[in-house]
Amino acid sequence: MFGRIDHIGLAVADLESAIELHTRTYGMPLVHRETIAEQGVEAVLLDVGESHVELLRPLSEDSPVGRFLAKKGPGLHHVAYQVDDVEAALGAAREAGMRLIDETPRTGIRGTQVAFLHPATAGGVLTELVQPVEAH
Amino acid sequence: MFGRIDHIGLAVADLESAIELHTRTYGMPLVHRETIAEQGVEAVLLDVGESHVELLRPLSEDSPVGRFLAKKGPGLHHVAYQVDDVEAALGAAREAGMRLIDETPRTGIRGTQVAFLHPATAGGVLTELVQPVEAH
Repeated sequence: MFGRIDHIGLAVADLESAIELHTRTYGMPLVHRETIAEQGVEAVLLDVGESHVELLRPLSEDSPVGRFLAKKGPGLHHVAYQVDDVEAALGAAREAGMRLIDETPRTGIRGTQVAFLHPATAGGVLTELVQPVEAH
Repeated sequence: MFGRIDHIGLAVADLESAIELHTRTYGMPLVHRETIAEQGVEAVLLDVGESHVELLRPLSEDSPVGRFLAKKGPGLHHVAYQVDDVEAALGAAREAGMRLIDETPRTGIRGTQVAFLHPATAGGVLTELVQPVEAH
């Protein structure tokens, strides 16, 4: 069902410091930057192998990432797996009895179709399914 | 410096349920299982693309993963990046002013050479450097 790790999402308070760490010290190329108003974040993608690191800076304290930061501080926020067909994957997760955050896919970063699975039935991990634009 | 995501490490309380979720629902092949007494964990590796998911069950409550579970519950524990030369990567991290957990590499899962960077200077992320056995 899952082809690869699409990205790991990190909650950051200081986006420029996080970019500096990942580009200069870790040597990851910055490949995309986008404000996703619907999710209340400014997001930055860095390349690492076939995957990305996604840095997430909340646009307000009253957003999911803003509340995460206030409660837990910066760090690992979610993992995203690439799937060929996010609707089918979401259906399979539902069939397996998993709790869904998104009942239907929505548009994510760079025009991808995405859906989140609730940590409660995903081993405590906020888990995102990502269907890349080029897959369909 | 970092070639790919080697693995994401998940702290789990119930290893068999976590294996079931990842193999049956997510379709990831289980490729390795090992007790690493030095780190106080039973570890399971699952394949996903060029990376792995590493499930970590603590052998005792008084171990790093045991304390993590008690404090935060199951979920994302660390991310590991693959490097060609872990000593060189550790030196570069030290030069960049990063706080190290391991001053010198040690043997990790499947005979890899590994070293951990402290979350304090790694954006709140417990970060592992992994040199695969086949690289040298």
